[in-house]
Amino acid sequence: MVTIDLNADLGESFGAWSMGADEAILPYVSSVNLACGFHAGDPHTLRASIQRALAQGVAIGAHPSYPDLLGFGRRDMALTPEEVFDCVLYQVAAVQGMCSALGGRLHHVKPHGALYNRAARDADCAAAIARAVQCINPGLILYGLAGSCLVAEAEKIGLRAVGEAFADRRYTLEGTLVPRSRPDALIADVDEAVAQARRIVHQQSVIAAQNHVVALRAGTLCLHGDGPHALDFARAIRRALEADGVRIAAPTNGYPANG
Amino acid sequence: MVTIDLNADLGESFGAWSMGADEAILPYVSSVNLACGFHAGDPHTLRASIQRALAQGVAIGAHPSYPDLLGFGRRDMALTPEEVFDCVLYQVAAVQGMCSALGGRLHHVKPHGALYNRAARDADCAAAIARAVQCINPGLILYGLAGSCLVAEAEKIGLRAVGEAFADRRYTLEGTLVPRSRPDALIADVDEAVAQARRIVHQQSVIAAQNHVVALRAGTLCLHGDGPHALDFARAIRRALEADGVRIAAPTNGYPANG
Amino acid sequence: MVTIDLNADLGESFGAWSMGADEAILPYVSSVNLACGFHAGDPHTLRASIQRALAQGVAIGAHPSYPDLLGFGRRDMALTPEEVFDCVLYQVAAVQGMCSALGGRLHHVKPHGALYNRAARDADCAAAIARAVQCINPGLILYGLAGSCLVAEAEKIGLRAVGEAFADRRYTLEGTLVPRSRPDALIADVDEAVAQARRIVHQQSVIAAQNHVVALRAGTLCLHGDGPHALDFARAIRRALEADGVRIAAPTNGYPANG
Amino acid sequence: MVTIDLNADLGESFGAWSMGADEAILPYVSSVNLACGFHAGDPHTLRASIQRALAQGVAIGAHPSYPDLLGFGRRDMALTPEEVFDCVLYQVAAVQGMCSALGGRLHHVKPHGALYNRAARDADCAAAIARAVQCINPGLILYGLAGSCLVAEAEKIGLRAVGEAFADRRYTLEGTLVPRSRPDALIADVDEAVAQARRIVHQQSVIAAQNHVVALRAGTLCLHGDGPHALDFARAIRRALEADGVRIAAPTNGYPANG
Repeated sequence: MVTIDLNADLGESFGAWSMGADEAILPYVSSVNLACGFHAGDPHTLRASIQRALAQGVAIGAHPSYPDLLGFGRRDMALTPEEVFDCVLYQVAAVQGMCSALGGRLHHVKPHGALYNRAARDADCAAAIARAVQCINPGLILYGLAGSCLVAEAEKIGLRAVGEAFADRRYTLEGTLVPRSRPDALIADVDEAVAQARRIVHQQSVIAAQNHVVALRAGTLCLHGDGPHALDFARAIRRALEADGVRIAAPTNGYPANG
Repeated sequence: MVTIDLNADLGESFGAWSMGADEAILPYVSSVNLACGFHAGDPHTLRASIQRALAQGVAIGAHPSYPDLLGFGRRDMALTPEEVFDCVLYQVAAVQGMCSALGGRLHHVKPHGALYNRAARDADCAAAIARAVQCINPGLILYGLAGSCLVAEAEKIGLRAVGEAFADRRYTLEGTLVPRSRPDALIADVDEAVAQARRIVHQQSVIAAQNHVVALRAGTLCLHGDGPHALDFARAIRRALEADGVRIAAPTNGYPANG
Repeated sequence: MVTIDLNADLGESFGAWSMGADEAILPYVSSVNLACGFHAGDPHTLRASIQRALAQGVAIGAHPSYPDLLGFGRRDMALTPEEVFDCVLYQVAAVQGMCSALGGRLHHVKPHGALYNRAARDADCAAAIARAVQCINPGLILYGLAGSCLVAEAEKIGLRAVGEAFADRRYTLEGTLVPRSRPDALIADVDEAVAQARRIVHQQSVIAAQNHVVALRAGTLCLHGDGPHALDFARAIRRALEADGVRIAAPTNGYPANG
Repeated sequence: MVTIDLNADLGESFGAWSMGADEAILPYVSSVNLACGFHAGDPHTLRASIQRALAQGVAIGAHPSYPDLLGFGRRDMALTPEEVFDCVLYQVAAVQGMCSALGGRLHHVKPHGALYNRAARDADCAAAIARAVQCINPGLILYGLAGSCLVAEAEKIGLRAVGEAFADRRYTLEGTLVPRSRPDALIADVDEAVAQARRIVHQQSVIAAQNHVVALRAGTLCLHGDGPHALDFARAIRRALEADGVRIAAPTNGYPANG
């Protein structure tokens, strides 16, 4: 039986500002990535988000970022690998400790925004993230762009990594995401997104430019929790995969503590 | 044999700014309280401080604060007990997780600055702190002003609490600290500070105004790591106590994980 | 002809988080108070808000706050009067300079949230705010709770102050606002709010508890830009006042620069 | 008579953390660049620094930065030119308004750290800074790396720019600074620094690698206010230049307001 994880970035409110339709997206996902306070999230939002995720029974991940609240972690910052290590260590530690305190267990880590993008192509940055996650808990799973440097660096040190793919993003011939700055970056049509999701799951590939088939080994699909059509996409993708007999579940690893 | 803990607030640098003589004070203490990032401290400072404390073999505590970097956590803020709970949970989780990742174990928690002062007199705030610490790890020890509300609230829920006293602060007839705003708040003479330390340890009391003896049950003395005479005081107090045959050691509790 | 100012708090977005229906409320007001970056607002939001206000032709005010982004400036903080002075000076300077750079002119200052409330009752805090505003520009107008300490302290040093009243808040017998923590704090019925607005404008009074009439000298009414019914209230209040022949305009003062 | 400006970066304390020997360096400089709160500085530090500079009679500049307190503005951040414009506008506005409020007048702007370095080579970033400064006040002078993009972009729009050079940094054959990551980046010998300062002032050149003479048009020299030998260097450079008959004074421009 084919299994896929559906994940979403949640807990992105901050203080008086709310963001995302966390309650609405939760029924469609098997895992969530929670902002840790550096680009979004705060102690209250984090606690409430962990409790909501536990109530729903989904796997909980930390979503560490560059320290850039004003830029929502979306701007690249020239942190050294050591600074990346320290920032990830702190953020993952905070979320793991709060999960345990609230009766749960941290399941995975997925870098956010500009840090995610840099870790996909910069081996030193990727290695720093992987080592920080392993230091916190070698049983954690690291989510990274499918086929990227981050997945490779994690596996190099024996950390379980899961490739992430996107149903609503277009891919280059190299298997990377078409940058958001380009007009064709996003798939706006729900049927096309569903088709891409099904192809990723069943054929481990996507159709890139000029109808080229690009291989892609993904264990998790990212669903978006905001934007006008986000929930429609999430619902359609989940239903289509379930109709195909796909099992929607968070990834596991052989590590005893997460057995 | 009489035992006392000597603690100091460390890890109070932030980014490019350094504060305190952490290296110099370490040999005199048996436990340290590390800033968690809300009033001071940052991921790098925290990691370096944990590693330094582990190398020195002293017990490591978290030093959570109000979220007030600009005010160094010294200004009272009208947080609700729930906000206090969440803020303490987050900060203690971060430090505990980093300690474990670096091969150590978190030993205690001591609130910082204005939060410490409020927790000494406000039962709701004190209870929120105690519950947060217990949620993170019931084997943690909570440091609070000797005889204060915080010690009482911790003990009420079965959390081990240790009263803190000060060798270089004067006390009121009620056993509270003379506010820093008053000219006689601080003891500037090293011999007087040593005498007060010895009285606290051997007689569990201090001399307050008009030579009244005030009982004080303290398990830890706070040494300061900054200021021109801080190290002189620390050295003199430690030597005097050792000369008395007092054992300088971090407190333990009966909880298995900290056996 | 009777004149009243209608003001709203705008520019309260921060980075990726948006707040308030700024575009929608603008047609109903004659002046706006813009967040300065300490509780909300950021350089981009501030510039866009100033340009929007200039395009609409409304008077622009600075809305300085305690430095508490996480708490949205709504939690009291124990700043000294000197710290209040410095924080207000910085924030008002930033907004005034940006207004001038963009072809406009700063018109007034209204403290935000917990600082507004403290300034209403604490003379030292109020005096610090008034002096900071006067230092920046003695032609600025200070908005404060009608009948409060802030209005008195401003007038004491020769700064023009304008009392603010609320159509949708209930008043105590002393002319202060019923705290939000009480169930009867808010007026939820639009007709009642309109009636209170008309009474404030035409009779310079409000009906407090037990039908007591309390005198209130207000030159500006605060309209809210968020919440489900905010725009309905704003529209109804503006229409009723215009139907009464009231002129809706920002206050002026005799100071040459604002002639 | 030859004239040169000697400038220093001051006001870099933040809250409880102090940095730099501001009092000690002031007698040696003719202009100062004050941190604006984004990488260092805070409302209190800024006010005290302005008052100190006014008392000393030196020209006051704003020292705007990327929004990166933790990284002290030294890490490159991928801000868009529009974000740079907004951030510079806000920071310069704040310092200009505070200067005026305290009886002075803002004289110049010098970008800080990673923003300074990026503006030296990135025309879009440089143009955004120059336009922001001009919007605030066309009479302001912009300090930038001598011969850099920032100087060129300022002059292109009619803003007065002054090239900055360093007595204690080594130069490449292209007239840029040898990066700090290289072992030969800094001149550690005071006589060598004095010689370089004199050459910059009298011959408008520096000696780069392999004894090549590189032309450099500089109107201001940067003196450092921290580090063990900073004051020795500052004193020696000032004395040598004065002994040469050089006039030490802040640059002026033909703009009426700064006549």
